[in-house]
Amino acid sequence: MINVGIIGYGYWGPNLVRNFAELAGCKVVAIADLDPEKLALAQRRFPAARTTTDVNELIADPSIDAVVIATPVRSHFKLGMAALKADKHVWLEKPMTETAEQARQLVEEADRRGKTLHVDHTFVYTGAVRKMGEIIARGDLGKILYYDSVRVNLGLFQHDVNVISDLAVHDFSILEYLLKEHPVAVSAAGINHFPNTPENLAYITLFYDSSIIAHVSVNWLAPVKVRQLLVGGSSKMMIYDDLQNSEKLKVYDKGVSFTDDPKKIHEMRVGYRTGDMWAPTIDGSEALRIGGQHFLDCIQNKKTSITDGRLGLKVVEIIEAATASMQNKGKTVEIKQLEMAS
Amino acid sequence: MINVGIIGYGYWGPNLVRNFAELAGCKVVAIADLDPEKLALAQRRFPAARTTTDVNELIADPSIDAVVIATPVRSHFKLGMAALKADKHVWLEKPMTETAEQARQLVEEADRRGKTLHVDHTFVYTGAVRKMGEIIARGDLGKILYYDSVRVNLGLFQHDVNVISDLAVHDFSILEYLLKEHPVAVSAAGINHFPNTPENLAYITLFYDSSIIAHVSVNWLAPVKVRQLLVGGSSKMMIYDDLQNSEKLKVYDKGVSFTDDPKKIHEMRVGYRTGDMWAPTIDGSEALRIGGQHFLDCIQNKKTSITDGRLGLKVVEIIEAATASMQNKGKTVEIKQLEMAS
Amino acid sequence: MINVGIIGYGYWGPNLVRNFAELAGCKVVAIADLDPEKLALAQRRFPAARTTTDVNELIADPSIDAVVIATPVRSHFKLGMAALKADKHVWLEKPMTETAEQARQLVEEADRRGKTLHVDHTFVYTGAVRKMGEIIARGDLGKILYYDSVRVNLGLFQHDVNVISDLAVHDFSILEYLLKEHPVAVSAAGINHFPNTPENLAYITLFYDSSIIAHVSVNWLAPVKVRQLLVGGSSKMMIYDDLQNSEKLKVYDKGVSFTDDPKKIHEMRVGYRTGDMWAPTIDGSEALRIGGQHFLDCIQNKKTSITDGRLGLKVVEIIEAATASMQNKGKTVEIKQLEMAS
Amino acid sequence: MINVGIIGYGYWGPNLVRNFAELAGCKVVAIADLDPEKLALAQRRFPAARTTTDVNELIADPSIDAVVIATPVRSHFKLGMAALKADKHVWLEKPMTETAEQARQLVEEADRRGKTLHVDHTFVYTGAVRKMGEIIARGDLGKILYYDSVRVNLGLFQHDVNVISDLAVHDFSILEYLLKEHPVAVSAAGINHFPNTPENLAYITLFYDSSIIAHVSVNWLAPVKVRQLLVGGSSKMMIYDDLQNSEKLKVYDKGVSFTDDPKKIHEMRVGYRTGDMWAPTIDGSEALRIGGQHFLDCIQNKKTSITDGRLGLKVVEIIEAATASMQNKGKTVEIKQLEMAS
Repeated sequence: MINVGIIGYGYWGPNLVRNFAELAGCKVVAIADLDPEKLALAQRRFPAARTTTDVNELIADPSIDAVVIATPVRSHFKLGMAALKADKHVWLEKPMTETAEQARQLVEEADRRGKTLHVDHTFVYTGAVRKMGEIIARGDLGKILYYDSVRVNLGLFQHDVNVISDLAVHDFSILEYLLKEHPVAVSAAGINHFPNTPENLAYITLFYDSSIIAHVSVNWLAPVKVRQLLVGGSSKMMIYDDLQNSEKLKVYDKGVSFTDDPKKIHEMRVGYRTGDMWAPTIDGSEALRIGGQHFLDCIQNKKTSITDGRLGLKVVEIIEAATASMQNKGKTVEIKQLEMAS
Repeated sequence: MINVGIIGYGYWGPNLVRNFAELAGCKVVAIADLDPEKLALAQRRFPAARTTTDVNELIADPSIDAVVIATPVRSHFKLGMAALKADKHVWLEKPMTETAEQARQLVEEADRRGKTLHVDHTFVYTGAVRKMGEIIARGDLGKILYYDSVRVNLGLFQHDVNVISDLAVHDFSILEYLLKEHPVAVSAAGINHFPNTPENLAYITLFYDSSIIAHVSVNWLAPVKVRQLLVGGSSKMMIYDDLQNSEKLKVYDKGVSFTDDPKKIHEMRVGYRTGDMWAPTIDGSEALRIGGQHFLDCIQNKKTSITDGRLGLKVVEIIEAATASMQNKGKTVEIKQLEMAS
Repeated sequence: MINVGIIGYGYWGPNLVRNFAELAGCKVVAIADLDPEKLALAQRRFPAARTTTDVNELIADPSIDAVVIATPVRSHFKLGMAALKADKHVWLEKPMTETAEQARQLVEEADRRGKTLHVDHTFVYTGAVRKMGEIIARGDLGKILYYDSVRVNLGLFQHDVNVISDLAVHDFSILEYLLKEHPVAVSAAGINHFPNTPENLAYITLFYDSSIIAHVSVNWLAPVKVRQLLVGGSSKMMIYDDLQNSEKLKVYDKGVSFTDDPKKIHEMRVGYRTGDMWAPTIDGSEALRIGGQHFLDCIQNKKTSITDGRLGLKVVEIIEAATASMQNKGKTVEIKQLEMAS
Repeated sequence: MINVGIIGYGYWGPNLVRNFAELAGCKVVAIADLDPEKLALAQRRFPAARTTTDVNELIADPSIDAVVIATPVRSHFKLGMAALKADKHVWLEKPMTETAEQARQLVEEADRRGKTLHVDHTFVYTGAVRKMGEIIARGDLGKILYYDSVRVNLGLFQHDVNVISDLAVHDFSILEYLLKEHPVAVSAAGINHFPNTPENLAYITLFYDSSIIAHVSVNWLAPVKVRQLLVGGSSKMMIYDDLQNSEKLKVYDKGVSFTDDPKKIHEMRVGYRTGDMWAPTIDGSEALRIGGQHFLDCIQNKKTSITDGRLGLKVVEIIEAATASMQNKGKTVEIKQLEMAS
């Protein structure tokens, strides 16, 4: 039985408490939040858990094996490091930290102590993304040519993070999971339409050493909600539309062939192929449930999490570089490739 | 009666001949093409027109008032300049020329001679774009915040121009028409997935001195066709989906309000408003017909074409700058503002 | 404060308990069910309510003002009559009773005792149906010509009622609410594809004395879910698609005009008009909440419920007649018009 | 080389002339129409064909092998019979005749003379319907349970035939083609909303001796166009949406299983299965072209047309019975099973 302590009972915290409370193999023993009203609410819903406004007390509690951190991102590094130093396994909400340097230090500390460090990039655990991963791993798409994602809607302005940290972060984690390749550079453009607010609209292009190019369009000001993701390959292409009630994932047997024949130099040298479309059944399990089980499995069986600190760090590297580019009207910014004692 | 000579009977030429043949107030008197087979075809369909493989002869023909040029873009400047110097009115296919400098010279020559110089940015003459123009001109959208367009499909690889010249050119002309404001800089990213072919996928961001940002996504390698264009304003937003059979244009009574109240500095300072949606009836007339009538009207009544050489030049300026940026991984490229004797 | 007792804690009962527990002006004092396990569950969730397996005891409880009945339809009449005779206000799940005669007796008993008798035709309380009611009441549609509804999906086989009672019942209540006119005859066809099961697919046509015809298509065996309802008028038409995330209701400014000119006897005498489409904002409140408030309001202020016993009876009359027609391959069955002391 | 004469150059005639003019293996030698203006138009477009206002002269022309009849349905029998008696092969537009008795006589006359008698039920020759036929023939759907079709739109009022003859006729021919089984009875309801016009809206249910039920909904007064056809089977189901630009046909790996276990008598005895969806590539060839080639092939190789007079007769039998039922508010009308010397 893994004893879990959860810090932060704000927007996402209640989902985490409910999730770990319902998972077999663990027990929510303590909940911490600075706001006594929120703690009172937590106490009513989960009477078996202890509540406290003192996070240090929770982190120091020797009966706790794993600490789940769902606070604003600016406190992730400090709390995560304290928990690791208290020899806890750590679950961090996304994005992992404010800076890549902070993320690097957390990874190294977790490595040193042999603790599980898991970042909650929930989308990676959806049935659709896992199915996309299988399809790519089987080589069905041929050579991957591009990734194109649109995540827009009206009504979720944040005041402390920009739209890249809020929405594009999902794509950065999906990209790392699907492609197993880190981008080398980024060019991003964005705008904040209101003074002293973070950017509410951004377009990010990621460059790779291979043939791949990735693009992510995010917007808090769109009249309709869109969650659409396209992966193009030389043999097949697939579209994941998260807002469909059924057939969320469609695989198109469409592709291109190319001839280098010099005689055709002035003609069309690219040919098309159009075949069937196929919408595989998707596992509809709640992604948070799957992620939670995976976290417990990693702790118990000393596995590395699919969305471990290294993946979380790579995502923060992309956010940092993209934000820097965005603040320079699209100036190309290189992304450092992680070098770390393994 | 305006006598028209048409140069180029390839992909688009037959549509132009048909269009001018059916328009009242003009007569197609001559058709030129280098390919005798195509000319023979033209002769069978339009027996009343003279055909020739000698473009100079057509341009020199004193009975011809207006020359319509539908050849590959690399010949636009030479043919356009020759026609203007022969004191003809000129209709040029899009894009107007290969370089902005060429376009500038054509504009000046047309000005000097008092001739109509019209660029066939057909989309500007669709019912949907004209309706969008009316809605913006009335101020219904409030302050314009962004323009976002997606034009993608499978199967139209070009071998002489890149995807920006082929597809994004439509958005650049629509932007100039709708916004009456020229972008000041551009950042573009793109890729050619096959050796020695033009870029087949590109993302272009345009920066404006006002609050506007514009983004265009174009792709010759997408599994499904998309022609979707979104204009966001502070009061309303609109979406034009050209592939819908009906309700192509939707106007959303959705917007945002902003408070500068310092007490709310740590809270959400942006509010939302959600109201009705409205899909106005769109004039379904063929855009080419409307454009042709406008060209004749400009000639007869010495009006300036809505898509005159100045607009055509601005579009070429954007293409040039976007292509330069694309070839430098998104490096910001400034767009010169047209300065010309008016 | 109205004290409420709820009978039946099966599929829908928990929703009703939650709803009345959260409504101001009433208190859930008792919950009855024959199954002790379900009662234990109810007790845990709603510790303030008393639970019992003895419905008679609940009905006899003098502290209870209103009885909510969410049991299988075969017990509706007996329980409803007992509750009315104990001078309670009554909320009955739909369909109201097994037979029209039973419904008639309940209506008369409620009238005699001056008690509120409300049938839970929840759809009538949705924002979309109320908006449709407003639009029709304003006369926007012109003369109503037809009503056409499709309600189909996979996976909700019932073993005690046929698909008409399960799905078409919604349309029958919406029709009574919107049209204020009772059909005079019905022709229905249906089939049960499996032995000893109720009909799983049915098509019902309702005939009216006015110009209206109504049709309802219901199916438990369709591969995709559809909830689409169309009302055609001489001036405008509207479509309500309950599965859309937004713009559930669309009003089309389309209609027909008719000329009786004898000279045009051999020509088209019907003309079309096509205008804008308009999607009004819909109140997104939970229909069950609105219905519950209305029930309490009727009790407190001696109003007649919008979905009172008379409407519930009319719906049962249509179900009875449609089922009879269905079992005779579409034979026309007349629907008696309610005659009752008012 | 088959010489073809075409009677009727109205709405559909020009398509037929173009089609036969472009087909290899035949020649359009004559076109007849009562209207000299239409004939003049035909002459200009097809100068190689002779035109005449005298249909008898065309029918009597010994150089003509096959007569194509595209006149109003009331003249089909007389012209078809005259052509057969002149020993011509005959192509008749749909519906084949006004009455089943007329159709029967044409079938017998064609049989007697060994001539090809083909009815232009074009939909049967679309790629989607042929693919549906293959899928059913392979047994992929399991036991066929139902057919459900919706064909509605605004703006095609006819003044001489009702909406069943105009729109439902397509479904009747598709049903005969797909199911290879003739319905035994029909119940239909419909209405004409304007005096002295044919019914503009109808709902038709067809009953079969097997487990199948079929339903067709047709309407000239709907605000949006729908062409959607659903075939449900015990193993799979398929939807054909003719208005989609791509993926017109979708095959759902969804079905039901049934247990007769008496212990489960009070429970759900029907189980569901949900799997992948698959959209096969559809041959996009023009259906009229495929139909025309088939007609020529039948003549040359003495084959029986897929849409021969027998199929045409069955369709007329259904139209007759459905119209009779419709005029009696859904009264069940039996459909005679064709008995004829084969």
